[in-house]
Amino acid sequence: MAYEPLMLKALALAKKGVGKTSPNPAVGSVVVKGGQVIAKGWHHKAGLPHAEIEALNSAGKNAKGSTLFVTLEPCCHFGKTPPCTDAIIASGIKKVIVGASDPNPIVAGKGVAALRAAGIEVVEGVLSNECSALNESYNKYITKGLPFVTLKLAASLDGRIAAAGGESKWITGIESRKLVHRMRAAADGVMVGSETALKDDPELTVRLASGRNPARVVLDSTLRLPVTSKVFNGVKEGRARLIIFTSKDAPEQRIKRACEAGAEVVKLAPAVGGLPLKRVLKALAERGMTSVLVEGGGKLAASLLKEKLFDALVVFYGPMIIGGDGLSMVAGLGLKGLKSAPRFKYLRVKKAGDDIIIECRP
Amino acid sequence: MAYEPLMLKALALAKKGVGKTSPNPAVGSVVVKGGQVIAKGWHHKAGLPHAEIEALNSAGKNAKGSTLFVTLEPCCHFGKTPPCTDAIIASGIKKVIVGASDPNPIVAGKGVAALRAAGIEVVEGVLSNECSALNESYNKYITKGLPFVTLKLAASLDGRIAAAGGESKWITGIESRKLVHRMRAAADGVMVGSETALKDDPELTVRLASGRNPARVVLDSTLRLPVTSKVFNGVKEGRARLIIFTSKDAPEQRIKRACEAGAEVVKLAPAVGGLPLKRVLKALAERGMTSVLVEGGGKLAASLLKEKLFDALVVFYGPMIIGGDGLSMVAGLGLKGLKSAPRFKYLRVKKAGDDIIIECRP
Repeated sequence: MAYEPLMLKALALAKKGVGKTSPNPAVGSVVVKGGQVIAKGWHHKAGLPHAEIEALNSAGKNAKGSTLFVTLEPCCHFGKTPPCTDAIIASGIKKVIVGASDPNPIVAGKGVAALRAAGIEVVEGVLSNECSALNESYNKYITKGLPFVTLKLAASLDGRIAAAGGESKWITGIESRKLVHRMRAAADGVMVGSETALKDDPELTVRLASGRNPARVVLDSTLRLPVTSKVFNGVKEGRARLIIFTSKDAPEQRIKRACEAGAEVVKLAPAVGGLPLKRVLKALAERGMTSVLVEGGGKLAASLLKEKLFDALVVFYGPMIIGGDGLSMVAGLGLKGLKSAPRFKYLRVKKAGDDIIIECRP
Repeated sequence: MAYEPLMLKALALAKKGVGKTSPNPAVGSVVVKGGQVIAKGWHHKAGLPHAEIEALNSAGKNAKGSTLFVTLEPCCHFGKTPPCTDAIIASGIKKVIVGASDPNPIVAGKGVAALRAAGIEVVEGVLSNECSALNESYNKYITKGLPFVTLKLAASLDGRIAAAGGESKWITGIESRKLVHRMRAAADGVMVGSETALKDDPELTVRLASGRNPARVVLDSTLRLPVTSKVFNGVKEGRARLIIFTSKDAPEQRIKRACEAGAEVVKLAPAVGGLPLKRVLKALAERGMTSVLVEGGGKLAASLLKEKLFDALVVFYGPMIIGGDGLSMVAGLGLKGLKSAPRFKYLRVKKAGDDIIIECRP
C-alpha cells in the first residue's frame, strides 16, 4: 500500500477545517481497508469530534482490522472530547499512519506511544511537512502561547501606504483586496493600530470572500476611536467581535461607551512607545486565537518588527510610485546600520491583477 | 518555406550586436537557397557593414536567385555606408523577408518600396514584434531624438536605498549586482545624480560582467564632484568616458580641473530644481547614445518620474526592511492624490539570489 496518495486524501479533508477549528488544529482522516477508503472524517470545529473519531464513527464495525490515516498524531488526553487513542484502540484498527507529530507538549509522541503499547502498528512522518504546514498557526500557538502573526501591508512600489494627503484608496486592486478578505477569513483575529482605524476607518470584516469574520482587534492606548467607527459594525448583532486594547490613559467615559457599543475593552499597563505588544498577543492567545493578521499601519508594523513579534510578512505592491512624501509602510526602525535590518526569506512571489504579492518569512 | 524558423536564426545573429551597434540598431540576416542557410551576417558596429551586406558578401555569386531574411527593413539611404537596397538588387536576390519596419523616418517603408520597384518579392512583418523589441532603444532614439531611459533602483522591501546613517552597501546581493553590470554593458550611458556620486562614490564601470563600459554621466549643477572620485577611474586611459553636466553656478576652476582630469563638461542653463533633464537627454542623444541607465538617487528618480522622461523602471528588492527613517528610493513627488501617481504595467518579475526584481513600463 502506497501511503502518500491516501495521506493526500486525508490532507484534502483536513483543509476543509482550516480557519474554523481554532484553537484546535485542522485535521483529516481516512479509514482504509483492502486498499479502498471506507470512511472519511475531518475536524469541523473545537468541541465537535476529532477527525479520526468522525472517520471511525462512519466506518462503524468495518473499522476492525483496517488502517487509519490521520494528518496529525492522535491525542491521548481529555480535552473537550475524550482521548482519540482510546477510541482507535477500541475500534480494532490494526495500523495507524500518522502525518505530523502533535507539537502540543501534552501529546507530542505520547499518542503514538499509547497506540503502540496497545499493539497497534504505527507509521509516522508520512507527508509530515505538508501536514504540519497546514497548522503553522496552531503549532506556534501551542508551543509558544502566542498567535502566529502575519504582517500584511498594501504599498506602492516605493513602499508607501498613502499619499502625502492621506489618500490610500486604492493602491492595490480588487483582486488583491479579495485575497486580503480570504486571509481575514482564515485568521482568528485581525489587528490594526488606532491611526489606521481612525484614518482609514476600515470595517475589517470578510465581504469580498466567503467565510466567517475574524475578531477585530484595535490597539488604542487613549481610546480615541469613536463608537461610530466601522469596526463597531456588526458587534451588537454578534456578526463580528471587537476587542480594543487600551491603557489607563484612556478616559473611563470612553471605555464605558465602547463597552456599551459591544466592544470588549482590555486595559493594559502602557509600555515604551505604546501598548505592550507581547502582552496584547498573549491576551489574544488566551482567548483561543491561534493566528492574527496585522493590517497596519506603519507604526504598528515597525513595533512588531523591532520586537520580533511576527512570523510572516506579506506585501501587496500596487503598480505605482507615490514618492518620498507619502506615508511609509514601516515607520522608522532606528537601525544602527544595514546589519541590524530585519531580513527575510522569500516564500512566494505571485501576481494578483495588476499587483505583485511577496510573501516572506524572517 | 516556413519563414519563422529562419527569421529566428536571423534574430539570434542580430542579438550578437545588442549593446555594440549604437547609434545603429542590432540587425541579423541569413541568405537561404533550397531551404538551406547559405550565408549569415550581423551588424557588428556603426561604420562596419550592415547585416544584409555581410550576408550577401558571404554568399557571393550564390546569392543570385536566393531569399534574404533580415530582421530590420533594409536601408535605402547613404549613411556611413551606401544603401543596402542597392546591394540587394545588384546581388540578384529574388525574395526578401523582413522582420520589423525601420522606424527611422528616412527609411520607414521606403526600403521595402525600393526593393519592390526593382521586381523583388518582399514579405514584411515576420516576427516583427520580436525583431522590433530587440531595438527598443534605437526605436525611441530615432523617432524622438532621445535615448531610451531605464530607471534602476536597488531598495529594501519598504523602498529604501540606504539606512538612516547613509549605509547602502549592500541592500541587494551579488547576483543582482552582476545583473546590473550586464545592464551597464548593454547601455550606452549610465547616469547618476551628484548626491549618489558623492555619497556612494561608484565607479559605474562593468566589472562583474563582460562587455564594454558605458559612458558615465553625472549631473552636478555646482560641480561638487572631486576629481578623486571613482567615476574618474579609467577616463585618462580611454577605458571609460565621463560626461559631467553642470550649470553656470559651477566655479570655473572646478570645471577646468575636471576637464584636465579627462571629463567632458557640459554647461547648461539651470532649470527649476536642478539641471534641465530633457536637455541633458537630448545632449546624450546628440552624442549617439540610444540608451541610458539611471542608477539613482532618489532625487533624480523623482525628477525623471515627474517629467515623464523615462521608459522603463527596474527595481531590485533586497530581502530586508530598513524602516521609514531610511533614504527613500524616490524623493517626494508632491502628488495631489493617488490618481496623479505614476502608474506601471509589469513586464517581468524574477528572482536573483535572495532578491526579487520587478521590471515595469509606464
